[in-house]
Amino acid sequence: MLWAMSSSPRSERRLRADRARQAADVIRQQVVRRAFPDGVLPDERFLAAEFSVSRNSIREALELLREEGLIDRVPGVGTVVVADKVEHGLNQLMGLAETLHEHGQITNDVRAATVIRAPSVVAQRLQLPADSSVVYVERLRRLNGLPLSLDLTYLALDVGEPLLDEDLVNRDIFSLIEQTSGQRLGTASVALEAVNADLHSATVLEVPRGAALMVVERLSHFASGRPVDLEFIRMRGDRLTMRAEICR
Amino acid sequence: MLWAMSSSPRSERRLRADRARQAADVIRQQVVRRAFPDGVLPDERFLAAEFSVSRNSIREALELLREEGLIDRVPGVGTVVVADKVEHGLNQLMGLAETLHEHGQITNDVRAATVIRAPSVVAQRLQLPADSSVVYVERLRRLNGLPLSLDLTYLALDVGEPLLDEDLVNRDIFSLIEQTSGQRLGTASVALEAVNADLHSATVLEVPRGAALMVVERLSHFASGRPVDLEFIRMRGDRLTMRAEICR
Repeated sequence: MLWAMSSSPRSERRLRADRARQAADVIRQQVVRRAFPDGVLPDERFLAAEFSVSRNSIREALELLREEGLIDRVPGVGTVVVADKVEHGLNQLMGLAETLHEHGQITNDVRAATVIRAPSVVAQRLQLPADSSVVYVERLRRLNGLPLSLDLTYLALDVGEPLLDEDLVNRDIFSLIEQTSGQRLGTASVALEAVNADLHSATVLEVPRGAALMVVERLSHFASGRPVDLEFIRMRGDRLTMRAEICR
Repeated sequence: MLWAMSSSPRSERRLRADRARQAADVIRQQVVRRAFPDGVLPDERFLAAEFSVSRNSIREALELLREEGLIDRVPGVGTVVVADKVEHGLNQLMGLAETLHEHGQITNDVRAATVIRAPSVVAQRLQLPADSSVVYVERLRRLNGLPLSLDLTYLALDVGEPLLDEDLVNRDIFSLIEQTSGQRLGTASVALEAVNADLHSATVLEVPRGAALMVVERLSHFASGRPVDLEFIRMRGDRLTMRAEICR
Protein backbone atom coordinates (compact mmCIF):
# COMPACT_ATOMS: atom_id res chain seq x y z
CA MET A 1 0.00 0.00 0.00
CA LEU A 2 1.76 3.13 -1.18
CA TRP A 3 -0.57 5.31 0.88
CA ALA A 4 0.86 4.00 4.11
CA MET A 5 4.47 4.61 3.18
CA SER A 6 4.88 7.57 5.49
CA SER A 7 3.20 8.57 8.73
CA SER A 8 4.46 12.09 9.38
CA PRO A 9 1.73 14.66 10.15
CA ARG A 10 2.44 16.35 6.83
CA SER A 11 1.91 13.24 4.75
CA GLU A 12 -1.11 12.42 6.92
CA ARG A 13 -2.72 15.63 5.71
CA ARG A 14 -1.81 14.86 2.12
CA LEU A 15 -3.28 11.45 2.54
CA ARG A 16 -6.60 12.85 3.67
CA ALA A 17 -6.65 15.39 0.84
CA ASP A 18 -5.88 12.62 -1.64
CA ARG A 19 -8.66 10.44 -0.28
CA ALA A 20 -11.04 13.39 -0.26
CA ARG A 21 -10.31 14.10 -3.94
CA GLN A 22 -10.79 10.44 -4.76
CA ALA A 23 -14.24 10.35 -3.12
CA ALA A 24 -15.18 13.78 -4.51
CA ASP A 25 -14.51 12.67 -8.10
CA VAL A 26 -16.87 9.72 -7.82
CA ILE A 27 -19.57 11.72 -6.01
CA ARG A 28 -19.26 14.56 -8.58
CA GLN A 29 -20.29 12.22 -11.37
CA GLN A 30 -23.21 10.94 -9.29
CA VAL A 31 -24.34 14.53 -8.78
CA VAL A 32 -24.02 15.32 -12.49
CA ARG A 33 -25.90 12.13 -13.40
CA ARG A 34 -28.65 12.97 -10.86
CA ALA A 35 -28.05 9.63 -9.18
CA PHE A 36 -29.25 10.65 -5.70
CA PRO A 37 -32.96 10.12 -4.98
CA ASP A 38 -34.64 13.46 -4.17
CA GLY A 39 -31.27 15.16 -4.63
CA VAL A 40 -30.20 14.32 -1.07
CA LEU A 41 -26.79 12.73 -0.51
CA PRO A 42 -26.34 9.81 1.93
CA ASP A 43 -25.01 10.86 5.34
CA GLU A 44 -21.32 11.13 6.14
CA ARG A 45 -21.22 7.82 8.02
CA PHE A 46 -22.62 5.98 4.98
CA LEU A 47 -20.25 7.74 2.58
CA ALA A 48 -17.26 7.06 4.83
CA ALA A 49 -18.08 3.34 4.73
CA GLU A 50 -18.78 3.47 0.98
CA PHE A 51 -15.35 4.91 0.23
CA SER A 52 -13.52 3.14 3.08
CA VAL A 53 -12.24 6.45 4.40
CA SER A 54 -12.60 8.53 7.57
CA ARG A 55 -15.52 10.89 8.12
CA ASN A 56 -13.00 13.74 8.03
CA SER A 57 -12.02 12.73 4.51
CA ILE A 58 -15.68 12.66 3.48
CA ARG A 59 -16.24 16.09 5.02
CA GLU A 60 -13.30 17.38 2.99
CA ALA A 61 -14.66 15.73 -0.18
CA LEU A 62 -18.08 17.33 0.34
CA GLU A 63 -16.42 20.69 0.99
CA LEU A 64 -14.64 20.42 -2.39
CA LEU A 65 -17.97 19.83 -4.15
CA ARG A 66 -19.63 22.60 -2.15
CA GLU A 67 -16.91 25.01 -3.31
CA GLU A 68 -17.64 23.94 -6.89
CA GLY A 69 -21.27 24.94 -6.32
CA LEU A 70 -22.58 21.40 -6.82
CA ILE A 71 -23.94 20.68 -3.34
CA ASP A 72 -24.87 22.54 -0.19
CA ARG A 73 -25.70 21.76 3.40
CA VAL A 74 -29.28 22.37 4.46
CA PRO A 75 -29.89 22.23 8.24
CA GLY A 76 -32.35 19.48 9.12
CA VAL A 77 -32.13 17.94 5.64
CA GLY A 78 -28.47 17.14 5.09
CA THR A 79 -26.33 17.58 2.00
CA VAL A 80 -28.36 18.38 -1.08
CA VAL A 81 -27.59 18.74 -4.77
CA VAL A 82 -27.82 22.36 -5.91
CA ALA A 83 -26.03 21.86 -9.24
CA ASP A 84 -28.07 22.64 -12.32
CA LYS A 85 -25.86 21.06 -14.95
CA VAL A 86 -27.02 20.02 -18.38
CA GLU A 87 -25.27 17.79 -20.90
CA HIS A 88 -24.09 18.73 -24.34
CA GLY A 89 -23.12 15.93 -26.70
CA LEU A 90 -19.89 16.16 -28.66
CA ASN A 91 -20.74 13.33 -31.04
CA GLN A 92 -23.38 15.17 -33.01
CA LEU A 93 -23.34 18.74 -34.26
CA MET A 94 -26.36 20.32 -32.64
CA GLY A 95 -27.43 23.75 -31.50
CA LEU A 96 -28.14 24.40 -27.81
CA ALA A 97 -31.91 24.64 -28.26
CA GLU A 98 -31.93 21.34 -30.18
CA THR A 99 -29.76 19.65 -27.55
CA LEU A 100 -31.45 21.01 -24.45
CA HIS A 101 -35.10 21.10 -25.50
CA GLU A 102 -35.94 18.64 -22.73
CA HIS A 103 -34.34 20.87 -20.12
CA GLY A 104 -36.28 23.98 -20.96
CA GLN A 105 -36.32 27.10 -23.05
CA ILE A 106 -33.19 28.55 -24.63
CA THR A 107 -33.38 32.30 -25.23
CA ASN A 108 -30.64 34.58 -26.50
CA ASP A 109 -29.78 38.16 -25.56
CA VAL A 110 -28.54 39.41 -28.93
CA ARG A 111 -25.67 41.73 -27.98
CA ALA A 112 -24.56 42.35 -31.56
CA ALA A 113 -25.79 41.33 -35.03
CA THR A 114 -24.02 43.24 -37.75
CA VAL A 115 -21.72 43.17 -40.75
CA ILE A 116 -18.01 43.71 -40.04
CA ARG A 117 -14.73 43.45 -41.93
CA ALA A 118 -13.30 40.01 -41.09
CA PRO A 119 -10.00 39.93 -39.20
CA SER A 120 -7.59 38.13 -41.56
CA VAL A 121 -7.47 34.99 -39.42
CA VAL A 122 -11.25 34.75 -39.44
CA ALA A 123 -11.29 35.23 -43.23
CA GLN A 124 -8.69 32.47 -43.60
CA ARG A 125 -10.62 30.04 -41.40
CA LEU A 126 -13.78 30.69 -43.44
CA GLN A 127 -11.75 30.42 -46.69
CA LEU A 128 -12.74 33.95 -47.70
CA PRO A 129 -10.55 36.54 -49.46
CA ALA A 130 -8.71 38.99 -47.22
CA ASP A 131 -10.83 41.99 -46.17
CA SER A 132 -14.09 40.12 -46.78
CA SER A 133 -17.15 41.28 -44.91
CA VAL A 134 -18.70 38.78 -42.53
CA VAL A 135 -21.73 38.76 -40.28
CA TYR A 136 -20.86 38.98 -36.58
CA VAL A 137 -23.42 37.83 -34.02
CA GLU A 138 -22.84 37.97 -30.27
CA ARG A 139 -25.34 36.24 -28.01
CA LEU A 140 -25.69 35.58 -24.31
CA ARG A 141 -27.55 32.28 -24.25
CA ARG A 142 -29.86 31.48 -21.36
CA LEU A 143 -31.54 28.27 -20.29
CA ASN A 144 -34.74 29.01 -18.40
CA GLY A 145 -33.48 32.55 -17.93
CA LEU A 146 -30.08 31.69 -16.41
CA PRO A 147 -26.89 32.44 -18.38
CA LEU A 148 -25.36 29.34 -19.92
CA SER A 149 -22.92 30.61 -22.52
CA LEU A 150 -21.62 33.66 -24.35
CA ASP A 151 -21.26 32.96 -28.09
CA LEU A 152 -19.30 35.04 -30.62
CA THR A 153 -20.18 33.94 -34.16
CA TYR A 154 -18.65 34.85 -37.54
CA LEU A 155 -20.62 33.85 -40.63
CA ALA A 156 -19.76 34.07 -44.32
CA LEU A 157 -21.73 37.03 -45.67
CA ASP A 158 -24.04 35.11 -48.03
CA VAL A 159 -24.87 32.68 -45.24
CA GLY A 160 -25.13 35.22 -42.42
CA GLU A 161 -26.95 38.17 -43.96
CA PRO A 162 -30.30 36.37 -44.33
CA LEU A 163 -30.10 35.55 -40.58
CA LEU A 164 -30.17 39.24 -39.61
CA ASP A 165 -33.91 39.29 -40.41
CA GLU A 166 -34.62 36.07 -38.50
CA ASP A 167 -35.52 35.32 -34.88
CA LEU A 168 -32.05 35.24 -33.33
CA VAL A 169 -33.59 35.52 -29.85
CA ASN A 170 -35.33 32.16 -29.89
CA ARG A 171 -33.70 30.10 -32.63
CA ASP A 172 -30.37 28.27 -32.97
CA ILE A 173 -28.05 29.67 -35.63
CA PHE A 174 -27.54 26.14 -37.01
CA SER A 175 -31.21 25.64 -37.81
CA LEU A 176 -31.52 29.18 -39.18
CA ILE A 177 -28.55 28.59 -41.49
CA GLU A 178 -30.01 25.35 -42.81
CA GLN A 179 -33.44 26.94 -43.27
CA THR A 180 -32.31 30.11 -45.06
CA SER A 181 -29.50 28.54 -47.14
CA GLY A 182 -31.35 25.34 -48.05
CA GLN A 183 -28.11 23.48 -47.37
CA ARG A 184 -27.32 20.97 -44.62
CA LEU A 185 -24.44 21.43 -42.23
CA GLY A 186 -21.85 18.65 -42.33
CA THR A 187 -18.87 18.44 -40.02
CA ALA A 188 -17.38 20.77 -37.44
CA SER A 189 -13.89 21.04 -35.97
CA VAL A 190 -13.98 21.72 -32.25
CA ALA A 191 -11.29 22.81 -29.79
CA LEU A 192 -12.07 22.80 -26.06
CA GLU A 193 -10.17 24.60 -23.34
CA ALA A 194 -10.71 25.21 -19.64
CA VAL A 195 -10.13 28.93 -18.93
CA ASN A 196 -10.66 31.17 -15.91
CA ALA A 197 -13.32 33.83 -16.53
CA ASP A 198 -12.02 37.36 -16.95
CA LEU A 199 -13.87 40.05 -15.01
CA HIS A 200 -16.07 41.24 -17.86
CA SER A 201 -17.04 37.78 -19.14
CA ALA A 202 -17.72 36.75 -15.55
CA THR A 203 -20.08 39.70 -15.13
CA VAL A 204 -21.95 38.87 -18.32
CA LEU A 205 -22.24 35.17 -17.39
CA GLU A 206 -23.13 36.02 -13.77
CA VAL A 207 -20.29 34.00 -12.22
CA PRO A 208 -17.45 35.08 -9.92
CA ARG A 209 -14.31 36.38 -11.61
CA GLY A 210 -11.98 33.45 -12.22
CA ALA A 211 -14.77 30.87 -12.43
CA ALA A 212 -13.80 27.94 -14.66
CA LEU A 213 -15.28 28.21 -18.15
CA MET A 214 -15.32 25.72 -21.00
CA VAL A 215 -14.14 27.75 -23.98
CA VAL A 216 -14.99 26.20 -27.33
CA GLU A 217 -13.83 27.18 -30.79
CA ARG A 218 -16.04 25.53 -33.40
CA LEU A 219 -15.73 25.78 -37.19
CA SER A 220 -18.81 24.34 -38.89
CA HIS A 221 -18.98 23.38 -42.56
CA PHE A 222 -21.75 22.80 -45.04
CA ALA A 223 -22.13 19.17 -46.08
CA SER A 224 -20.30 20.31 -49.25
CA GLY A 225 -17.21 20.94 -47.10
CA ARG A 226 -17.31 24.73 -47.26
CA PRO A 227 -16.61 26.37 -43.86
CA VAL A 228 -19.36 28.87 -43.06
CA ASP A 229 -19.69 29.37 -39.30
CA LEU A 230 -16.82 30.14 -36.89
CA GLU A 231 -17.83 30.38 -33.22
CA PHE A 232 -16.07 31.18 -29.99
CA ILE A 233 -18.18 29.96 -27.08
CA ARG A 234 -17.70 30.51 -23.34
CA MET A 235 -19.75 28.00 -21.38
CA ARG A 236 -20.26 28.19 -17.64
CA GLY A 237 -18.34 25.27 -16.18
CA ASP A 238 -20.90 24.88 -13.40
CA ARG A 239 -23.79 24.48 -15.85
CA LEU A 240 -22.54 22.27 -18.68
CA THR A 241 -21.01 18.82 -19.04
CA MET A 242 -19.73 17.80 -22.47
CA ARG A 243 -20.17 14.12 -23.37
CA ALA A 244 -18.57 12.05 -26.10
CA GLU A 245 -18.16 8.46 -27.17
CA ILE A 246 -14.70 7.64 -28.49
CA CYS A 247 -13.37 4.63 -30.38
CA ARG A 248 -9.91 3.10 -30.06
CA MET B 1 -24.77 48.59 -35.74
CA LEU B 2 -25.89 47.45 -32.33
CA TRP B 3 -22.53 48.36 -30.78
CA ALA B 4 -23.16 52.05 -31.24
CA MET B 5 -26.56 52.02 -29.59
CA SER B 6 -25.41 53.82 -26.46
CA SER B 7 -22.61 56.24 -25.78
CA SER B 8 -22.62 56.67 -22.01
CA PRO B 9 -19.21 56.19 -20.34
CA ARG B 10 -20.47 52.97 -18.78
CA SER B 11 -21.47 51.39 -22.07
CA GLU B 12 -18.27 52.77 -23.59
CA ARG B 13 -16.34 50.62 -21.12
CA ARG B 14 -18.51 47.61 -21.88
CA LEU B 15 -17.92 48.19 -25.54
CA ARG B 16 -14.16 48.13 -25.16
CA ALA B 17 -14.32 45.00 -22.99
CA ASP B 18 -16.53 43.31 -25.58
CA ARG B 19 -14.15 44.21 -28.39
CA ALA B 20 -11.19 43.08 -26.32
CA ARG B 21 -12.80 39.70 -25.71
CA GLN B 22 -13.60 39.38 -29.39
CA ALA B 23 -9.98 39.99 -30.42
CA ALA B 24 -8.64 37.86 -27.55
CA ASP B 25 -10.65 34.83 -28.68
CA VAL B 26 -9.22 34.94 -32.19
CA ILE B 27 -5.66 35.57 -30.97
CA ARG B 28 -5.98 32.77 -28.38
CA GLN B 29 -6.53 30.22 -31.15
CA GLN B 30 -3.58 31.62 -33.10
CA VAL B 31 -1.42 31.19 -30.00
CA VAL B 32 -2.65 27.62 -29.45
CA ARG B 33 -2.08 26.79 -33.13
CA ARG B 34 1.44 28.29 -32.95
CA ALA B 35 0.52 30.61 -35.82
CA PHE B 36 2.96 33.42 -34.95
CA PRO B 37 6.42 33.16 -36.55
CA ASP B 38 9.12 32.90 -33.86
CA GLY B 39 6.36 33.11 -31.24
CA VAL B 40 6.26 36.92 -31.43
CA LEU B 41 2.89 38.66 -31.85
CA PRO B 42 2.45 41.56 -34.28
CA ASP B 43 2.59 44.98 -32.61
CA GLU B 44 -0.47 46.71 -31.14
CA ARG B 45 -0.87 49.06 -34.12
CA PHE B 46 -1.02 46.10 -36.53
CA LEU B 47 -3.45 44.18 -34.31
CA ALA B 48 -5.66 47.24 -33.85
CA ALA B 49 -5.95 47.54 -37.64
CA GLU B 50 -6.44 43.78 -38.01
CA PHE B 51 -9.42 43.77 -35.66
CA SER B 52 -10.66 47.26 -36.56
CA VAL B 53 -10.52 48.32 -32.91
CA SER B 54 -8.65 50.88 -30.82
CA ARG B 55 -5.18 50.20 -29.43
CA ASN B 56 -6.73 50.35 -25.97
CA SER B 57 -9.01 47.45 -26.89
CA ILE B 58 -6.01 45.47 -28.16
CA ARG B 59 -4.10 46.22 -24.95
CA GLU B 60 -7.04 44.89 -22.99
CA ALA B 61 -7.23 41.79 -25.21
CA LEU B 62 -3.53 41.08 -24.71
CA GLU B 63 -3.92 41.59 -20.96
CA LEU B 64 -6.67 38.91 -20.93
CA LEU B 65 -4.34 36.45 -22.65
CA ARG B 66 -1.47 37.44 -20.37
CA GLU B 67 -3.64 36.68 -17.35
CA GLU B 68 -4.38 33.27 -18.86
CA GLY B 69 -0.63 32.64 -19.01
CA LEU B 70 -0.55 32.40 -22.79
CA ILE B 71 1.58 35.42 -23.65
CA ASP B 72 3.91 37.86 -21.93
CA ARG B 73 5.59 41.17 -22.65
CA VAL B 74 9.36 41.10 -23.09
CA PRO B 75 11.02 44.53 -23.14
CA GLY B 76 12.78 45.13 -26.43
CA VAL B 77 11.10 42.15 -28.09
CA GLY B 78 7.36 42.75 -27.77
CA THR B 79 4.57 40.36 -26.91
CA VAL B 80 5.68 36.75 -27.02
CA VAL B 81 3.94 33.42 -26.71
CA VAL B 82 4.78 31.67 -23.44
CA ALA B 83 1.98 29.09 -23.61
CA ASP B 84 3.09 25.50 -23.77
CA LYS B 85 -0.17 23.86 -24.79
CA VAL B 86 -0.47 20.47 -26.41
CA GLU B 87 -3.46 18.94 -28.17
CA HIS B 88 -5.34 15.84 -27.17
CA GLY B 89 -7.72 14.32 -29.70
CA LEU B 90 -11.21 13.30 -28.64
CA ASN B 91 -11.93 11.30 -31.77
CA GLN B 92 -9.66 8.41 -31.00
CA LEU B 93 -9.09 6.66 -27.72
CA MET B 94 -5.39 7.10 -27.04
CA GLY B 95 -3.15 7.34 -24.03
CA LEU B 96 -1.18 10.50 -23.34
CA ALA B 97 2.19 9.03 -24.31
CA GLU B 98 0.70 7.76 -27.58
CA THR B 99 -0.92 11.12 -28.32
CA LEU B 100 1.95 13.35 -27.31
CA HIS B 101 4.99 11.37 -28.45
CA GLU B 102 5.93 14.17 -30.83
CA HIS B 103 5.89 16.72 -28.02
CA GLY B 104 8.24 14.87 -25.73
CA GLN B 105 8.49 12.37 -22.96
CA ILE B 106 5.55 11.47 -20.72
CA THR B 107 6.56 10.24 -17.29
CA ASN B 108 4.30 9.39 -14.37
CA ASP B 109 4.78 9.91 -10.65
CA VAL B 110 2.96 6.85 -9.34
CA ARG B 111 1.27 8.15 -6.17
CA ALA B 112 -0.68 4.95 -5.52
CA ALA B 113 -0.90 1.51 -7.14
CA THR B 114 -2.81 -0.92 -5.01
CA VAL B 115 -5.86 -3.14 -4.57
CA ILE B 116 -8.86 -1.54 -2.85
CA ARG B 117 -12.50 -2.39 -2.22
CA ALA B 118 -14.50 -0.65 -4.97
CA PRO B 119 -16.94 2.05 -3.89
CA SER B 120 -20.34 0.76 -5.00
CA VAL B 121 -20.67 3.35 -7.79
CA VAL B 122 -17.30 2.35 -9.19
CA ALA B 123 -18.29 -1.34 -9.03
CA GLN B 124 -21.53 -0.54 -10.87
CA ARG B 125 -19.77 1.43 -13.61
CA LEU B 126 -17.33 -1.45 -14.13
CA GLN B 127 -20.24 -3.94 -14.00
CA LEU B 128 -18.69 -5.76 -11.05
CA PRO B 129 -20.50 -7.28 -8.04
CA ALA B 130 -20.83 -5.04 -4.97
CA ASP B 131 -17.76 -5.13 -2.72
CA SER B 132 -15.48 -6.28 -5.54
CA SER B 133 -11.82 -5.52 -5.26
CA VAL B 134 -10.35 -3.26 -7.93
CA VAL B 135 -6.90 -1.96 -8.73
CA TYR B 136 -6.50 1.74 -7.96
CA VAL B 137 -3.69 3.68 -9.63
CA GLU B 138 -3.04 7.37 -9.04
CA ARG B 139 -0.54 9.11 -11.28
CA LEU B 140 0.73 12.63 -11.72
CA ARG B 141 1.54 12.73 -15.41
CA ARG B 142 4.32 14.97 -16.67
CA LEU B 143 5.32 16.06 -20.14
CA ASN B 144 9.02 16.85 -20.28
CA GLY B 145 8.97 17.07 -16.51
CA LEU B 146 6.11 19.57 -16.13
CA PRO B 147 2.80 18.44 -14.60
CA LEU B 148 0.08 17.91 -17.19
CA SER B 149 -2.60 15.90 -15.42
CA LEU B 150 -3.51 14.02 -12.28
CA ASP B 151 -5.17 10.68 -13.13
CA LEU B 152 -7.18 8.47 -10.74
CA THR B 153 -7.77 5.07 -12.33
CA TYR B 154 -9.95 2.13 -11.26
CA LEU B 155 -9.36 -1.16 -13.05
CA ALA B 156 -11.22 -4.46 -12.86
CA LEU B 157 -9.02 -6.78 -10.76
CA ASP B 158 -8.18 -9.32 -13.48
CA VAL B 159 -7.22 -6.48 -15.82
CA GLY B 160 -5.43 -4.31 -13.29
CA GLU B 161 -3.44 -6.75 -11.19
CA PRO B 162 -1.00 -7.70 -13.96
CA LEU B 163 -0.24 -3.96 -14.38
CA LEU B 164 1.12 -3.68 -10.84
CA ASP B 165 4.30 -5.47 -12.02
CA GLU B 166 4.64 -3.32 -15.13
CA ASP B 167 6.37 -0.01 -15.86
CA LEU B 168 3.66 2.43 -14.72
CA VAL B 169 6.22 5.25 -14.65
CA ASN B 170 6.86 5.31 -18.39
CA ARG B 171 3.96 3.47 -20.06
CA ASP B 172 0.33 4.38 -20.78
CA ILE B 173 -2.21 2.25 -18.93
CA PHE B 174 -4.06 1.67 -22.23
CA SER B 175 -1.10 0.02 -23.91
CA LEU B 176 -0.26 -1.95 -20.76
CA ILE B 177 -3.85 -3.25 -20.57
CA GLU B 178 -3.80 -4.36 -24.19
CA GLN B 179 -0.40 -5.98 -23.79
CA THR B 180 -1.09 -7.90 -20.58
CA SER B 181 -4.71 -8.87 -21.37
CA GLY B 182 -4.18 -9.67 -25.02
CA GLN B 183 -7.45 -7.84 -25.73
CA ARG B 184 -8.01 -4.61 -27.64
CA LEU B 185 -9.79 -1.66 -26.13
CA GLY B 186 -12.93 -0.57 -27.97
CA THR B 187 -15.01 2.46 -27.05
CA ALA B 188 -14.93 4.91 -24.17
CA SER B 189 -17.60 7.20 -22.72
CA VAL B 190 -16.18 10.59 -21.83
CA ALA B 191 -17.56 13.46 -19.77
CA LEU B 192 -15.71 16.79 -19.74
CA GLU B 193 -16.11 19.59 -17.22
CA ALA B 194 -14.31 22.85 -16.51
CA VAL B 195 -13.60 23.04 -12.76
CA ASN B 196 -11.57 25.39 -10.56
CA ALA B 197 -8.62 23.64 -8.91
CA ASP B 198 -8.96 23.02 -5.18
CA LEU B 199 -5.94 23.89 -3.07
CA HIS B 200 -4.51 20.40 -2.85
CA SER B 201 -4.96 19.49 -6.53
CA ALA B 202 -3.51 22.89 -7.45
CA THR B 203 -0.43 22.16 -5.34
CA VAL B 204 0.08 18.76 -6.96
CA LEU B 205 -0.38 20.17 -10.48
CA GLU B 206 1.78 23.23 -9.68
CA VAL B 207 -0.89 25.80 -10.59
CA PRO B 208 -2.48 28.57 -8.50
CA ARG B 209 -5.51 27.61 -6.41
CA GLY B 210 -8.62 28.14 -8.52
CA ALA B 211 -6.86 27.62 -11.86
CA ALA B 212 -9.23 26.26 -14.50
CA LEU B 213 -8.86 22.52 -14.99
CA MET B 214 -10.40 20.23 -17.58
CA VAL B 215 -11.85 17.38 -15.53
CA VAL B 216 -12.51 14.23 -17.51
CA GLU B 217 -14.35 11.09 -16.49
CA ARG B 218 -13.61 8.31 -18.94
CA LEU B 219 -14.97 4.75 -18.90
CA SER B 220 -13.09 2.55 -21.35
CA HIS B 221 -14.31 -0.81 -22.58
CA PHE B 222 -12.71 -3.81 -24.18
CA ALA B 223 -13.67 -4.31 -27.83
CA SER B 224 -16.01 -7.00 -26.45
CA GLY B 225 -17.98 -4.23 -24.71
CA ARG B 226 -16.92 -5.05 -21.15
CA PRO B 227 -16.06 -1.90 -19.14
CA VAL B 228 -12.62 -2.31 -17.55
CA ASP B 229 -11.03 1.08 -16.89
CA LEU B 230 -12.71 4.02 -15.08
CA GLU B 231 -10.60 7.18 -14.90
CA PHE B 232 -10.97 10.59 -13.33
CA ILE B 233 -8.49 12.97 -14.92
CA ARG B 234 -7.64 16.56 -13.96
CA MET B 235 -5.85 18.28 -16.82
CA ARG B 236 -4.17 21.64 -16.50
CA GLY B 237 -6.26 24.04 -18.58
CA ASP B 238 -3.18 26.04 -19.52
CA ARG B 239 -1.42 23.00 -20.97
CA LEU B 240 -4.04 21.04 -22.89
CA THR B 241 -6.48 21.68 -25.72
CA MET B 242 -8.99 18.95 -26.57
CA ARG B 243 -9.86 18.59 -30.26
CA ALA B 244 -12.73 16.79 -31.94
CA GLU B 245 -14.41 16.46 -35.32
CA ILE B 246 -18.20 16.30 -35.12
CA CYS B 247 -20.81 15.37 -37.70
CA ARG B 248 -24.27 16.86 -38.06
